Amino acid sequence: MNVTQRIAGLRALMTEKGMDAYVVPTADFHQSEYVGEHFKARKYISGFSGSYGTVVITKDDGGLWTDGRYFFQAENELRGSGIRLMKMFVGDTPSITEYLCDRVPEGGTVAFDGRVLSMGEGQEYEEALAKKQIRINYSEDLIDAIWKDRPPLSDKPAFFLEEKYSGESTESKLARVRGEMKKQNASIHIITSLDDICWLLNVRGDDIDFFPLVLSYVIVKKDRVELYVDETKLDDRILEELKKNQVTVHPYNAVYEDVKNIDPSETVLIDPMKMNYALYKNIPCTIVEAANPTILMKAMKNEVELENIRKAHIKDGVAVTKFMYWVKTRYDKENITELSSAKKLTGLRAAQEGYIRDSFEPLCAFADHAAMMHYSPSEETDVTLSSGAFFLNDTGGGYYEGSTDITRTFVLGSVDAQMKRYFTAVVRAMMGLSRARFLYGCYGYNLDVLARGPIWDLDLDYQCGTGHGVGYLANVHEPPTGFRWYVVPSKNEHHQLEEGMVITDEPGIYEDGQFGIRIENEFVVRKGVKNKYGQFMYFETITFAPIDLDGIDPEEMSRDEREWLNHYHRQVYENIGPHLTEEEREWLKEYTRPV
Amino acid sequence: MNVTQRIAGLRALMTEKGMDAYVVPTADFHQSEYVGEHFKARKYISGFSGSYGTVVITKDDGGLWTDGRYFFQAENELRGSGIRLMKMFVGDTPSITEYLCDRVPEGGTVAFDGRVLSMGEGQEYEEALAKKQIRINYSEDLIDAIWKDRPPLSDKPAFFLEEKYSGESTESKLARVRGEMKKQNASIHIITSLDDICWLLNVRGDDIDFFPLVLSYVIVKKDRVELYVDETKLDDRILEELKKNQVTVHPYNAVYEDVKNIDPSETVLIDPMKMNYALYKNIPCTIVEAANPTILMKAMKNEVELENIRKAHIKDGVAVTKFMYWVKTRYDKENITELSSAKKLTGLRAAQEGYIRDSFEPLCAFADHAAMMHYSPSEETDVTLSSGAFFLNDTGGGYYEGSTDITRTFVLGSVDAQMKRYFTAVVRAMMGLSRARFLYGCYGYNLDVLARGPIWDLDLDYQCGTGHGVGYLANVHEPPTGFRWYVVPSKNEHHQLEEGMVITDEPGIYEDGQFGIRIENEFVVRKGVKNKYGQFMYFETITFAPIDLDGIDPEEMSRDEREWLNHYHRQVYENIGPHLTEEEREWLKEYTRPV
Repeated sequence: MNVTQRIAGLRALMTEKGMDAYVVPTADFHQSEYVGEHFKARKYISGFSGSYGTVVITKDDGGLWTDGRYFFQAENELRGSGIRLMKMFVGDTPSITEYLCDRVPEGGTVAFDGRVLSMGEGQEYEEALAKKQIRINYSEDLIDAIWKDRPPLSDKPAFFLEEKYSGESTESKLARVRGEMKKQNASIHIITSLDDICWLLNVRGDDIDFFPLVLSYVIVKKDRVELYVDETKLDDRILEELKKNQVTVHPYNAVYEDVKNIDPSETVLIDPMKMNYALYKNIPCTIVEAANPTILMKAMKNEVELENIRKAHIKDGVAVTKFMYWVKTRYDKENITELSSAKKLTGLRAAQEGYIRDSFEPLCAFADHAAMMHYSPSEETDVTLSSGAFFLNDTGGGYYEGSTDITRTFVLGSVDAQMKRYFTAVVRAMMGLSRARFLYGCYGYNLDVLARGPIWDLDLDYQCGTGHGVGYLANVHEPPTGFRWYVVPSKNEHHQLEEGMVITDEPGIYEDGQFGIRIENEFVVRKGVKNKYGQFMYFETITFAPIDLDGIDPEEMSRDEREWLNHYHRQVYENIGPHLTEEEREWLKEYTRPV
Repeated sequence: MNVTQRIAGLRALMTEKGMDAYVVPTADFHQSEYVGEHFKARKYISGFSGSYGTVVITKDDGGLWTDGRYFFQAENELRGSGIRLMKMFVGDTPSITEYLCDRVPEGGTVAFDGRVLSMGEGQEYEEALAKKQIRINYSEDLIDAIWKDRPPLSDKPAFFLEEKYSGESTESKLARVRGEMKKQNASIHIITSLDDICWLLNVRGDDIDFFPLVLSYVIVKKDRVELYVDETKLDDRILEELKKNQVTVHPYNAVYEDVKNIDPSETVLIDPMKMNYALYKNIPCTIVEAANPTILMKAMKNEVELENIRKAHIKDGVAVTKFMYWVKTRYDKENITELSSAKKLTGLRAAQEGYIRDSFEPLCAFADHAAMMHYSPSEETDVTLSSGAFFLNDTGGGYYEGSTDITRTFVLGSVDAQMKRYFTAVVRAMMGLSRARFLYGCYGYNLDVLARGPIWDLDLDYQCGTGHGVGYLANVHEPPTGFRWYVVPSKNEHHQLEEGMVITDEPGIYEDGQFGIRIENEFVVRKGVKNKYGQFMYFETITFAPIDLDGIDPEEMSRDEREWLNHYHRQVYENIGPHLTEEEREWLKEYTRPV
């Protein structure tokens, strides 16, 4: 069945069941950013393979809502599907609910699988659609009915993350979570977000694309914990720890019925951004809505985690530097493609001790492919590297010591003056944010312009956030903090910058049909001087790999910027050099020279 | 009576009337920032003369809440009063309502004159105090009872601002306001903020310290307008215009009774930030709360206003440049003091055609006096200028062509390397914001760091906003936009940056007991390129006066910064030079030389 046939099948079912529109978001039951194969319903129905987007099918129309990262890719992949690209946050694009109100007749029905919509989204739909007396049917998974060869749920094994990696026992974490529950006057806390559950239980697995998480739900009570998971995934080490913490294991899907049986006298704390709509609808008692306490705890990495993360970044930097050396010295001597280079880089990472898996799909994009912000190569699109172009690599590794996320754009051969000017602007943008010193209390939106400024100065914009929190063997995009100049409530990234948060800094320039440039480092939020003005903060850069000097025009940089870059490259040489071959080290010396 | 006796008198009345705390804010009945002599109750009761602060007196304690601009001054002026300085936005300082809840017994009474508290403040008090069953008495002006020689209300004449200055007739403004009322489904709009009323009616006057406004209230109805004002202030030209626009004049204080008589079927639009609590309590019908539509209309200056404002700034720049020349070449030859220099500068402004009055109290602060952010000289504090120090002048003129607000810090003699480094940082800070290019949609908090960054880099902070909107012969601090890194809801300055807004950019460094440096320009928000990324915006600098090169170390500046400064000084020379004497022009050439 092709996409058109699938949509026809869906419409037939919709008619049969009296539905005027069917909504298919990108989601599993846990509001995960990346999802396992079983959950790729939106890709199945539309053909669009990007990580972010929601499809709405009506009787005679269809739309895909996605953001600037995916406009180009979506236009390509939607061709011929009859589904229109709805560019979020651009011009007059209607929101999904505005579109539904416009397209669905008064008294009509909008349907979706309530398990794959967040509670907040479901409530928004309720509110918006009520104005036109449109009903919601949230209990039908129509995609399942037409998707004959749907992959089953993952049954891959989980593993325990020892305290030398996690830095804090589940006992201690549970005590802190219960402390926050008490503050909210809640006797029960339901957690459905996988990274929060895995952080709390110090468990990791393999159920989600790239993110090493375990499909599960958790109900934290005052004196015990209910865990809903496929028990066959758990090994003895995990079971021992669960027992120690009064955690009882139940079947994965039993949570929906169990929640219905919560005593009406209880008060449940739930995070509307992190709870699915169907589960929320099942809760029979008083609800307190607040961010999961685990979100902030998890984001503020402890000292053990930070020490590990720094180590992971050195390993990762070694792999990326070896990769850069290999690409830049070999691309004109042998046939290197986007895919083969991605494979090479994964191999170099895998050779590092403690490597588990890549932390997300490698985005290796040559020349104009890199103008598609989240392009990842496939057999159909793969190209051979050649001279006179940029080669963008946004990749990361997952190690027991933590996850990394790094982007380097390599100059192959020589590039023209404008490309160099743009490359230099992106480097200046990345440095501008990295160098920030600021008072405690700042949010991402206060500092975003430090990166975006040099790009805006060119009348350009990268149309996405500048950076995001990074999880420790968890979500590579981790709330609650990021850098963005505008506030997107649904992004859940609006916490002030707190000590120990690990965040990326990844401005870029993307020229459709020509090239893409992105330079991405990660840094840790650290405390600086405390004086009568308050607590000063700064960023400790933890990513170490050369920034390609072949793309930089030092004349475009201020003295301070050159000093920062030279200091950074000195650190790269010192941290990475000792782990290279003689030949690579010589090359690195040249590529970390002062400018 | 000294302050201690006044407080004793207030406490006696409080006891008599069963009040546990009495609140005295800095306000007239119109939430004006500066107030006429009649309204200086807070200064009367506490001795603190700053423009911003609220006093709370309890039976055995007292506090003054003010912000960082005034900490130093308040500490001096409160000495011996028994009133404690409560530093707003610093550390653990309780808010006023927190303090009241802490100090006033359950079931006690907090009192204030409901006319001098904003509706929003009154509601905050209601909400906070209700938790402890504390009652509010808002109908007693106790200060009036003890202030025997209280100055009467102003009776100074008003004047009409012709369309060649205002750029828009009252007829057109009323049509726009009624359009916004319709959008809000309001049939009546009560305006109590004087700058909004004066803008709407194209009238100015002399009832407030420095701001050329007229004490009045306005009720805009669908087909007519009720104006509450002392009619003796109005001349024939004004009366003619009022008649043309169906405006009926009523006695100033009649508004309180008239509002009670509004028909219950009406819907009244009011701005909770701009309405006093007592008047709000009198409204008998449905209320829609929203910002006064006039606020945004007034802030987005029209082309006629902008052309005028540019002219006003040239005149003002001529006065300031002549003043700078005079101070820097004469301070070591004759006795120049803070007060005599303030007088000199006012004289130079007054010599400009179209001058009406200074736009606020001249802040001429020598050496350590300038560390007090809003110090203004008095007979008691006046000092003679001498060598080896900074002399800060934050002043402005009001002309028919608009109001100005400019700060220049002059170097007298030579200053040490650290002072120069700080001075250069302040200049870089001011330029950093001025040079911004940004996408439409940005708020002040997105860009504030461009000014604050160079100061934060030194582990310093100026503890106040970076800039504020400037009114046209109106409030020198004009909502709804400003630059501040944190959001202060009560500040009403959180609108995105709109074309035509005139805003200041005035970072500084203040070292207690040593010196203060502030450099302030004004700029206009302008539209730049519009492309697929959106509407780019930039700032057009409109203030022209030399930035003292004697304080600048060009080595501390980037090439871009030097270029900006040199370009700016070229413009200063071109705009101001032709209006100077030969001698002054020669001097200006030297002080606008490229660095």
